[in-house]
Amino acid sequence: MRRVRAQLQAVSLEEAQRIFFAPEFFQAREEEIKTREAVGRVTSRPVCAQRDLPHYASAAMDGIAVKAERTRLADPHHPLRLKRGRDCEYVDTGDPIPDTYDAVIKIEDVHELDADTIEITRPVPVGKHIRAVGEDFAQGAQVIPKDFLLTPEAVAALLGTGNLTVWVKCRPRAIFIPTGSELIPPEKKPSRGQIVETNSQIVRGYVERWGASVTIHPIVLNDFIYVRRAVQEACAEHDLILLGAGTSKGRGDWVSEVVRGLGEVLVHGVAYHPGHPVLLGVIERKPVVGLPGYPVATWLALHLFVWPLVERYYFGRARELIKIQAKLTKPIRSVRGFREFVRARLERAADGSYLVHPLQGGASKLSTIVGADGWIEVPEDVEHYEHGALVEATLVDAVV
Amino acid sequence: MRRVRAQLQAVSLEEAQRIFFAPEFFQAREEEIKTREAVGRVTSRPVCAQRDLPHYASAAMDGIAVKAERTRLADPHHPLRLKRGRDCEYVDTGDPIPDTYDAVIKIEDVHELDADTIEITRPVPVGKHIRAVGEDFAQGAQVIPKDFLLTPEAVAALLGTGNLTVWVKCRPRAIFIPTGSELIPPEKKPSRGQIVETNSQIVRGYVERWGASVTIHPIVLNDFIYVRRAVQEACAEHDLILLGAGTSKGRGDWVSEVVRGLGEVLVHGVAYHPGHPVLLGVIERKPVVGLPGYPVATWLALHLFVWPLVERYYFGRARELIKIQAKLTKPIRSVRGFREFVRARLERAADGSYLVHPLQGGASKLSTIVGADGWIEVPEDVEHYEHGALVEATLVDAVV
Repeated sequence: MRRVRAQLQAVSLEEAQRIFFAPEFFQAREEEIKTREAVGRVTSRPVCAQRDLPHYASAAMDGIAVKAERTRLADPHHPLRLKRGRDCEYVDTGDPIPDTYDAVIKIEDVHELDADTIEITRPVPVGKHIRAVGEDFAQGAQVIPKDFLLTPEAVAALLGTGNLTVWVKCRPRAIFIPTGSELIPPEKKPSRGQIVETNSQIVRGYVERWGASVTIHPIVLNDFIYVRRAVQEACAEHDLILLGAGTSKGRGDWVSEVVRGLGEVLVHGVAYHPGHPVLLGVIERKPVVGLPGYPVATWLALHLFVWPLVERYYFGRARELIKIQAKLTKPIRSVRGFREFVRARLERAADGSYLVHPLQGGASKLSTIVGADGWIEVPEDVEHYEHGALVEATLVDAVV
Repeated sequence: MRRVRAQLQAVSLEEAQRIFFAPEFFQAREEEIKTREAVGRVTSRPVCAQRDLPHYASAAMDGIAVKAERTRLADPHHPLRLKRGRDCEYVDTGDPIPDTYDAVIKIEDVHELDADTIEITRPVPVGKHIRAVGEDFAQGAQVIPKDFLLTPEAVAALLGTGNLTVWVKCRPRAIFIPTGSELIPPEKKPSRGQIVETNSQIVRGYVERWGASVTIHPIVLNDFIYVRRAVQEACAEHDLILLGAGTSKGRGDWVSEVVRGLGEVLVHGVAYHPGHPVLLGVIERKPVVGLPGYPVATWLALHLFVWPLVERYYFGRARELIKIQAKLTKPIRSVRGFREFVRARLERAADGSYLVHPLQGGASKLSTIVGADGWIEVPEDVEHYEHGALVEATLVDAVV
């Protein structure tokens, strides 16, 4: 009579990711932008130095510029005298080295006899304390590779080598479509049976942070025709379709019916908690993720299925989330046979080791993710971890 | 005749931080903003729930709503029959629970005899599979504490509890003043002796990421009067003064003379490499940091002195940068007596452990920080680490 969750698949997480991440999603598009505004963008081409950096030989220390050959015989017992203007010249860090000189002696190693006469007690090799032309980046050499996330220092390197503009990948355009007749925007006062739609905040916050642009579609009533029209229109203008599947009235099935009608359902039901009813599909080569309605499940599905997708678009592979060994401050109970992701907050102990506080509670509870730094993954065959056990905590906001 | 670096102090890093972070910097200012736009901002007051979340009792599973008391006698040998409309009602996840009922039996545990008659084989306790009113956040309870960095899920929790606006700390206003007659903007072609000013990109990129607003002052000629005027004007409109001290012509001394004239120099010279000539001061209760001109030194001084300052403004203390145990892929040599920060790139090995690649090279080389994930700190009494040694790598972009 009713479709229930027992009818969903229970594909393993690895298998679901393998199936979903395999297709060639997203058209590669690139745009040329001002390098000054490029922090956080990802290069679509390698970038080479337009000129040497540094572009002239300069002093790396305050001191005197000399001809190294001329200092060969200096030693502490036979100090060598140099005439300013003829044998040497004062230079400060950054000053160009006059063409006739090829080394610098540090000011601390120089004994000034009078305004024009300097005594040294050690020879100096060619190139000493000189920043050579192109020693940071040589003209024509690669400064930044393709698929590189531009950090502030990368932008500095590009500008320093004469690259005022840079080709970057266009941001993928994601859209989130919240579905459900009981949903209302936060600005309205909910009456009994109405739920304030807030998952869009979680979706936008994270997906924008990962480098996509995010459009939030107005709430769509729980009706096949409306959901279908919204998805169809979304496909025309977006690269990634995210559906807020809701948690009630077999709504997950509208979504799967719509996706099946317009494209293909790849996976519907993944064997992990919280988030089992996640739907993974494809329409016109565009990835579609049906996010389970409970906020914790949405949060987790975003990290497990959407983040790796955006990463693949930018880097060809997903970088790894940082994992930290940490000591449990409370025991964890889990259900055998299902992988569980327990939200967790990390703390650095006085001795430099890490403690991890598990935040257990229903998937409906925002309070369990507010303040979580990441999660502890409890495998299928583990029923509990004891207080004090050393576990691996995955951080949601740090990558390597 | 010339002031040289040997005349600088060599205050230990801990001592320099203790001195610099002690004064009460920054006026606490707050503003009320739309919660929808508050991701990344930090609360200036605790926020309480304006209403219960959830605000009505609802089904946590698809099934039938019942009066628990009525199911007391059900057992597998004596199934209990319930009449729809009188003893029970079908509910889907999220549906309000009718007032007469107080528990839900999962659809999987229900045997439907006909459209109106249902058989159950087990009793159910009061509250089972019901999301109680206020179980996520009760009206009046704290949703988010003061000094809390608003994540996407925190914004969802605020909107879900009826908080459409939120009081947050104003962003501290930083200004970066690059000083140096040889500096030119990246848009100009440098001739011999001219250096393209790119440190401002590093300053802006990081300091904005940490939550401050950053103004980049036009390049200031290397002249006491100009530097003094720029600093004086900057103090009127900003909370944090960052000076690009340059690396040559004793320019560090202009900066210290200017700061001493307008306020107080707290520390000039810290015993670490690269970045020894850093200057820490205060003018009109506003922190002033003289950043050494080499880009690696600027990058490091920002992380060691500016980041903790911004953190203190927001959180009353600096969060900790994440540190990871990792195996060195190359030996490191360091100078005894000076703490050294060796740039490093982290890699996750196939077995889940971490490798760390040291990126050694002069402090002038942007190429050693482009692609660095953080650093390895080599203490004063260590001269080298061997290939394969287990060291602690600090990540610049992850906090706990």
